[in-house]
Amino acid sequence: MGMKLYDLAGAESERRFSPFCWRIKMALAHKGLQAETIPWRFSDKPLIAQYKWERVPVLVDDGRGVVDSWTIANYLEDSYGGRPSLFGGGAGRPLARFYNQWADAVLQPGISRFVMLDVYNHLDSRDREYFRTSREARIGTSLEAYSADRDSRLAAFRQSLEPLRQTLAAQPFLGGESPLYPDYIVFGGFQWARSISSFVLLEAADPVNAWRERLLHRFDDFAHATPGYW
Amino acid sequence: MGMKLYDLAGAESERRFSPFCWRIKMALAHKGLQAETIPWRFSDKPLIAQYKWERVPVLVDDGRGVVDSWTIANYLEDSYGGRPSLFGGGAGRPLARFYNQWADAVLQPGISRFVMLDVYNHLDSRDREYFRTSREARIGTSLEAYSADRDSRLAAFRQSLEPLRQTLAAQPFLGGESPLYPDYIVFGGFQWARSISSFVLLEAADPVNAWRERLLHRFDDFAHATPGYW
Repeated sequence: MGMKLYDLAGAESERRFSPFCWRIKMALAHKGLQAETIPWRFSDKPLIAQYKWERVPVLVDDGRGVVDSWTIANYLEDSYGGRPSLFGGGAGRPLARFYNQWADAVLQPGISRFVMLDVYNHLDSRDREYFRTSREARIGTSLEAYSADRDSRLAAFRQSLEPLRQTLAAQPFLGGESPLYPDYIVFGGFQWARSISSFVLLEAADPVNAWRERLLHRFDDFAHATPGYW
Repeated sequence: MGMKLYDLAGAESERRFSPFCWRIKMALAHKGLQAETIPWRFSDKPLIAQYKWERVPVLVDDGRGVVDSWTIANYLEDSYGGRPSLFGGGAGRPLARFYNQWADAVLQPGISRFVMLDVYNHLDSRDREYFRTSREARIGTSLEAYSADRDSRLAAFRQSLEPLRQTLAAQPFLGGESPLYPDYIVFGGFQWARSISSFVLLEAADPVNAWRERLLHRFDDFAHATPGYW
């Protein structure tokens, strides 16, 4: 049996926008591993219930289910050690965790203000009521109000990327001369935005954007060839 | 000739508060290297002019001057490779840079709102006018106004530490089971605060504080034994 990855999709089955799934799709490409990606909607929870989980990514490798993006990345590193390392050896694995938490606590919440309504508008009709209800409970306001005033929020968002910008002005990737899993963690947030929203988050001349372009074209244009706006 | 480190001091020569110098003092301890630390004040620029630099830390190793904390850390790693690694091998060195930029762009600017006036109050009288003039030009207001309303700013500051908190809830150090240079980078900011201000930035039960305590007691209580408030 080959590998399968349950991958969040919109109404169009090829529009794959989950930042967490992007982390894993890039990690699989880094390892040179093929996986069949299965478009999954929020209303498809029964499809992954056997893995005792309600969110994607879920990786199924030779019948074994692995859930949660950080756990999946570690699983791939440990199970496919003969292939290019995701963490770069040495202390790379523990040092990668802060990137994971920074993306979860700073980057992705920052991006969510710009893309939440666009996510809703791209969802399969079966998913819309669930998404609106669950997200509006979490954010405490309507999707429309949450996503308003995007232009006025942009400068502060770009400022929040300063540690990333200064790092990528000094070296081509977070991992150094070539990308590692921390690059894919952060890139996942930008792929979320690109795949679901025409709102351009980065200035063309920003070192963060130049790095994003390098990753878009990595692995034979893998990410760039997927549906996206910018 | 042994090693010398020019280390920022207050009116009391043992009150050493520079976050950048703390990064290097912990790095030296990690490597098991002894350096004579020379108390240095802002008005002592002529003492380091031969190294074509105006700030500390400046490390002088066998007559050779090395400036800038990131450069010094790399110098120590490369020159003393037989001693415990500061970056943990593999991709640890490029992965450490983001921590450096996060401390410079997020952590230390965040802490500065709480400690700037306390820094001024601890300075040698020769340094005060320079410090007030240069810092007030940079921050665009008086030291007193900049440092006001500390209590009301505390929740937002603590929230800004969330990536650090989540990481340190999952592993004892940023470097994993034992500390690496990224730990010392971030710890430097907290040592700046501890050495100069009685304002307590962290809740006792915060995983960030527990990690800080572990580092305070590292290397035979090295940091803990220096003058500080909390």
